[in-house]
Amino acid sequence: MKIQIINGPNLNLLGKREPSIYGDESFDGFIDKLRMFYPNDEIYYFQSNSEGAIIDKLHEVGFDFDGIILNAGAYTHTSIAIADAIRAINTPVIEVHISNVHARESFRQHSYLSAACKGVILGFGLDSYRLAMESFKLK
Amino acid sequence: MKIQIINGPNLNLLGKREPSIYGDESFDGFIDKLRMFYPNDEIYYFQSNSEGAIIDKLHEVGFDFDGIILNAGAYTHTSIAIADAIRAINTPVIEVHISNVHARESFRQHSYLSAACKGVILGFGLDSYRLAMESFKLK
Amino acid sequence: MKIQIINGPNLNLLGKREPSIYGDESFDGFIDKLRMFYPNDEIYYFQSNSEGAIIDKLHEVGFDFDGIILNAGAYTHTSIAIADAIRAINTPVIEVHISNVHARESFRQHSYLSAACKGVILGFGLDSYRLAMESFKLK
Amino acid sequence: MKIQIINGPNLNLLGKREPSIYGDESFDGFIDKLRMFYPNDEIYYFQSNSEGAIIDKLHEVGFDFDGIILNAGAYTHTSIAIADAIRAINTPVIEVHISNVHARESFRQHSYLSAACKGVILGFGLDSYRLAMESFKLK
Amino acid sequence: MKIQIINGPNLNLLGKREPSIYGDESFDGFIDKLRMFYPNDEIYYFQSNSEGAIIDKLHEVGFDFDGIILNAGAYTHTSIAIADAIRAINTPVIEVHISNVHARESFRQHSYLSAACKGVILGFGLDSYRLAMESFKLK
Amino acid sequence: MKIQIINGPNLNLLGKREPSIYGDESFDGFIDKLRMFYPNDEIYYFQSNSEGAIIDKLHEVGFDFDGIILNAGAYTHTSIAIADAIRAINTPVIEVHISNVHARESFRQHSYLSAACKGVILGFGLDSYRLAMESFKLK
Amino acid sequence: MKIQIINGPNLNLLGKREPSIYGDESFDGFIDKLRMFYPNDEIYYFQSNSEGAIIDKLHEVGFDFDGIILNAGAYTHTSIAIADAIRAINTPVIEVHISNVHARESFRQHSYLSAACKGVILGFGLDSYRLAMESFKLK
Amino acid sequence: MKIQIINGPNLNLLGKREPSIYGDESFDGFIDKLRMFYPNDEIYYFQSNSEGAIIDKLHEVGFDFDGIILNAGAYTHTSIAIADAIRAINTPVIEVHISNVHARESFRQHSYLSAACKGVILGFGLDSYRLAMESFKLK
Amino acid sequence: MKIQIINGPNLNLLGKREPSIYGDESFDGFIDKLRMFYPNDEIYYFQSNSEGAIIDKLHEVGFDFDGIILNAGAYTHTSIAIADAIRAINTPVIEVHISNVHARESFRQHSYLSAACKGVILGFGLDSYRLAMESFKLK
Amino acid sequence: MKIQIINGPNLNLLGKREPSIYGDESFDGFIDKLRMFYPNDEIYYFQSNSEGAIIDKLHEVGFDFDGIILNAGAYTHTSIAIADAIRAINTPVIEVHISNVHARESFRQHSYLSAACKGVILGFGLDSYRLAMESFKLK
Amino acid sequence: MKIQIINGPNLNLLGKREPSIYGDESFDGFIDKLRMFYPNDEIYYFQSNSEGAIIDKLHEVGFDFDGIILNAGAYTHTSIAIADAIRAINTPVIEVHISNVHARESFRQHSYLSAACKGVILGFGLDSYRLAMESFKLK
Amino acid sequence: MKIQIINGPNLNLLGKREPSIYGDESFDGFIDKLRMFYPNDEIYYFQSNSEGAIIDKLHEVGFDFDGIILNAGAYTHTSIAIADAIRAINTPVIEVHISNVHARESFRQHSYLSAACKGVILGFGLDSYRLAMESFKLK
Repeated sequence: MKIQIINGPNLNLLGKREPSIYGDESFDGFIDKLRMFYPNDEIYYFQSNSEGAIIDKLHEVGFDFDGIILNAGAYTHTSIAIADAIRAINTPVIEVHISNVHARESFRQHSYLSAACKGVILGFGLDSYRLAMESFKLK
Repeated sequence: MKIQIINGPNLNLLGKREPSIYGDESFDGFIDKLRMFYPNDEIYYFQSNSEGAIIDKLHEVGFDFDGIILNAGAYTHTSIAIADAIRAINTPVIEVHISNVHARESFRQHSYLSAACKGVILGFGLDSYRLAMESFKLK
Repeated sequence: MKIQIINGPNLNLLGKREPSIYGDESFDGFIDKLRMFYPNDEIYYFQSNSEGAIIDKLHEVGFDFDGIILNAGAYTHTSIAIADAIRAINTPVIEVHISNVHARESFRQHSYLSAACKGVILGFGLDSYRLAMESFKLK
Repeated sequence: MKIQIINGPNLNLLGKREPSIYGDESFDGFIDKLRMFYPNDEIYYFQSNSEGAIIDKLHEVGFDFDGIILNAGAYTHTSIAIADAIRAINTPVIEVHISNVHARESFRQHSYLSAACKGVILGFGLDSYRLAMESFKLK
Repeated sequence: MKIQIINGPNLNLLGKREPSIYGDESFDGFIDKLRMFYPNDEIYYFQSNSEGAIIDKLHEVGFDFDGIILNAGAYTHTSIAIADAIRAINTPVIEVHISNVHARESFRQHSYLSAACKGVILGFGLDSYRLAMESFKLK
Repeated sequence: MKIQIINGPNLNLLGKREPSIYGDESFDGFIDKLRMFYPNDEIYYFQSNSEGAIIDKLHEVGFDFDGIILNAGAYTHTSIAIADAIRAINTPVIEVHISNVHARESFRQHSYLSAACKGVILGFGLDSYRLAMESFKLK
Repeated sequence: MKIQIINGPNLNLLGKREPSIYGDESFDGFIDKLRMFYPNDEIYYFQSNSEGAIIDKLHEVGFDFDGIILNAGAYTHTSIAIADAIRAINTPVIEVHISNVHARESFRQHSYLSAACKGVILGFGLDSYRLAMESFKLK
Repeated sequence: MKIQIINGPNLNLLGKREPSIYGDESFDGFIDKLRMFYPNDEIYYFQSNSEGAIIDKLHEVGFDFDGIILNAGAYTHTSIAIADAIRAINTPVIEVHISNVHARESFRQHSYLSAACKGVILGFGLDSYRLAMESFKLK
Repeated sequence: MKIQIINGPNLNLLGKREPSIYGDESFDGFIDKLRMFYPNDEIYYFQSNSEGAIIDKLHEVGFDFDGIILNAGAYTHTSIAIADAIRAINTPVIEVHISNVHARESFRQHSYLSAACKGVILGFGLDSYRLAMESFKLK
Repeated sequence: MKIQIINGPNLNLLGKREPSIYGDESFDGFIDKLRMFYPNDEIYYFQSNSEGAIIDKLHEVGFDFDGIILNAGAYTHTSIAIADAIRAINTPVIEVHISNVHARESFRQHSYLSAACKGVILGFGLDSYRLAMESFKLK
Repeated sequence: MKIQIINGPNLNLLGKREPSIYGDESFDGFIDKLRMFYPNDEIYYFQSNSEGAIIDKLHEVGFDFDGIILNAGAYTHTSIAIADAIRAINTPVIEVHISNVHARESFRQHSYLSAACKGVILGFGLDSYRLAMESFKLK
Repeated sequence: MKIQIINGPNLNLLGKREPSIYGDESFDGFIDKLRMFYPNDEIYYFQSNSEGAIIDKLHEVGFDFDGIILNAGAYTHTSIAIADAIRAINTPVIEVHISNVHARESFRQHSYLSAACKGVILGFGLDSYRLAMESFKLK
């Protein structure tokens, strides 16, 4: 299976930002482990702070990959354009979040993306990505 | 591991209600398969159409089980009392939904429960329960 | 025809509560007259103050009765779960209210149930039930 | 009994507009049948697309008729003036709708008229008028 | 005097739930002390997690008791049906809360019940019940 | 001075509608007295239940009369078209109301017309028209 | 092609109202030029300040004309009845506005009509009508 | 007649503030003229920038004066306490405004006071006070 | 114990205002009785119609009194400044109201003060003050 | 004339995305035809999924082109920055949409851009661009 | 330069209130240092807990001082009257806040004053006043 | 000190856009003067119309610079992602605006960024940047 993971704004700082809270493991380190766990799958990783670049990537992989795992960060709550991109492509998209966004500020409790995605997994830390991988396996 | 699955209102009709849409598999059938898949775990199942009975069950199992998988159905959107019950117990609760509730009526897009739960998994059909089981395994 | 009448919370107090306003006729008395008026029909009556019990009853009769007359009382304005139950069954449901709920507090002017019911009849006192019976006869 | 039926905007197109949905029976045809069904009553019919004309008619018949059946169409949701007219007259007014307006666009779910009317009947097709006739008989 | 205390959802966990915060005294223990303090009064205690059961109890005692002390827990903020029950009975009802609900989440700042009760006492811990008892003595 | 009084919907029923409240004096009677009080002025009177007819009249007199006194009744709260008509003409318009509309239903507390009128006088019974006449005299 | 232009309230004052702003060309003058520009088409013109008369006209021409150009003026923002009329007829309707209504008061930024029309053209002065004519030619 | 005029915050600057707009006549000058115009009446004048002082004055004169003319300035839109004071006294209060507050910022379009006053007069410049005087004469 | 009672706007009129409703007992009379009932406590009384004076008094007594009983009248619903003053001092403050404010106008159902106070007692008439006194005794 | 067409996010997928709905013609193909239709004009085309790149392009052409046709896609509903860019440049901008956005989700019914543009054309499919071209010709 | 500093409610408690948070420096001490820092300027200081007194002071100094630094405390969020006073005077007013009010309760995020002031400086502790002084120097 | 100034969308047009209003000084010219004024500090300048590029720059300088002065232009009101970036870095960020944004459109009165910044300075023209520089000096 060909799976694309797309991370949105500020997720590049993982491991550097407030390590006492988020741990000192970078997302690159996590991806290495994930690839080792699924040795028969191709797992691609892309991160951008730019809404437009995320849309570009969704277009690029959205017609022949088997699945997309999308953590759009703060764009989750403001971007209709990304939601439109998800609707325009064929590959199923799983929305993930590391933290339980519902337990945070009220403006984080609405997602423009959820209605366009196949499913949503949130609150399990980095395991949210792991469960999204599993969801493609169950299919 | 001791896991309690709790289903809320109208979920007892699964398999009987609009079988062309929801399939003709009852939840009882699904539970059997789930237990076979996790032979070393004790999986308990409870369904009620009553908000109070769901709270009673959360209290009963909430101090010595390893995990609770809760699909509160429509009470998800109206019950502060169930949210309080989740906060009052020790066992981690995973909120699941069969359908992508964000793609339905607007009153289904707010959950009183999410902020009190450990995590949320929705949109994967009955596999939402399966992924919730996996989430306990990853711990 | 097999018809089920379901009354929601506080409607058991009819005839006892403020008799100068509501009259001293209990709902049981009214049912007797209604049955006499429709001697060839089976009219069943159920009242509960519990949301869950009302859902249970809808499930029980919702697949082989000819009609359901539902006065859900205050649950009309707060219960998405009852609305889901109405949508899940086959028997047509008529929503009735004794008083003109639109002429009362603003929170009584929204009904979660109406959109799920076949029709709505309100404001005619106990005759609202009578007109609901007639609606089944016209079919 | 002298009964006035008043239909509001666009209801003159019944039978012509989308006959596959609304049937090919015009309201004139329906009135004929209704009169035959209640041979001892005088049933008057008035339709207008003008808010002012509907108010004029309510004033004209509102002091000596036995009942008014009003389907104000879209004015239901926008006209405080018609609601005031209903409050200003003596004859009881029954609000009717052919379709279940609560199952349509959200702006159709608020009625300025309901609080001023004696009762409301909606969702029974043309039988809504028939049930309104019955409601006068029960009195 | 015959006084009924009614506690709503999750209040059965008092003393067990987070004892470092709520103390390790159960409500049963508190009731014992309260009865000792008012030896000449009959103090009845009822707790339920079910909205319907609370309404049933209000109906049962609402016509011949001298007073009702009601802590409806989370149902305070969601139940129109309990508010209707309070309005339907004769016994005066005092709404109490252990914590200062106004200093908590915004959805806890609206009470459907207050407008139907005789008075409200909140924020004094278990002494809120004690002050409610005093309020009946002052009468 | 040439003054046009325009009354909106339902104001034709004055004196007939609920005489114990509104008195048994018709608006025609009041106009007679008003004309006697201002013998040197030409006072024209127009009433219509139709929004369009009110706009027509505003256009007709709005370029050469000295003043317009407008009680638009319920259209006050719903008609942007009348507000536009007031803005389109040259004659100053005074908005009047017989009752204190701010002490009634909340939907009567917003006026589309006020911002387009020169001034507003309300709450003085039929004297509101008298004070509007005085306002033209003071100029 | 048979085209009907319908203008709503206050548009009859064009050329007379504030000529320094709107110019001193009346709509009648503009229609003459438009007809000269499209000599092979029949262009009909109707203006009314009455909501009901606009609906009547839509019904009259809505089944055999080739196109309708509708500038409903202020009724754009308040009339569900006109929107229903547009939905009830067969002829495609183009909504036009002379000014850029989005750059004006906030209550002018919502149109009940747009969702029922085929297309919307606004902000081009009287050329908005011209572009609507072109839109029929392109088909 | 004994009449009290009460002016609220910032109205003491009249004549000094932006004289090109408001004119160079102070309110003191206006009061002199008003007294000359009504030589048989006692007209008292009070201005304060303090909400509390306005309430004190209302209490002081509110039980034996014949009328109060109140321009509460910005407190119109924020003071429930002044509204309560108006309700607590016996003397009728007329709310006046110099400018047409409805044609200004949206937060100036709601008045807490109007519902408690006998009538409202606004938009006539200083003549608003004059018309309020007349309103007492008409009684 | 040193206790300060602070009453806000319009409460000075008690006993004078509508005596048929509020009784003819002034608050001064009530204070005398209260002091007799608690002969060992020092009970100070302060009333002002001025928001600023209430804040001054809170500052004055807020660091060495044992308790403050505050009925801020209408300032309850509009004053963030009084809420800040309560938060800035050390003495616990009990919010009281004579009437059941939740059963009155909707703008009286929000209190800026409650979240800053230790507790709230409302609806018991003048006994609300008495119960507040008791609350200090229970401590 | 020098005209710039700017397309926003996801419009690059035209012809590829759901061809049964949108047809199999790409926007590049459409541009070719457009250029053939207007052989004497220079028509430039730019598409980007990035909000910032759209602003850059508006700045680049906004001071010496004759017109800009902008379909900002989903940024229409979320971008104040693009609206500011339109206001900052000299070239007139026409907002176009292929579909009737008012007949879609409610969040598509508000445009930040419309108030800043010269005019709006929507709902005519690709002909919306054609009509925008015509609008420059009419000038 | 003559500069007036005006502090609103509760700011007199600085240094006394919660010294571990706010430090033990009183505002009087800070003023002394500020005057030493700007020896050539006259710096006047006024504090009041009364909205009316703040307006009085603004009027007093608002026509011949060089600048006003205003920290209106909680009145920032509720006082239209102070905003009107700022608009009525000539001296430029700088709004300052010690804390970052945007990071606190939501009702502190709206300021009635900002739109009337020349500029706003907030979040720099007591240095906010210092930067406001600098802003006058830069002029 | 190392200070980074970051300007958001459309601020590159300063000096070119509407010079009669904004002056003909470009931001580059202003930066030169600023650097001359603070010869011992390193002042870096970055402008971008792209939300993503602004986040990239914040990440780049946010861990070792002494301060960041951010004028995010229109992104101030729409970007949760920039706010998250500010929270993720260590360098203190000062939000500045050239104009008084509170005196403009209502959608400019909410800032997602303010709560994440150390302080806010607005309304002083280009001096807002100068005061931000001073704020770092005071530290």
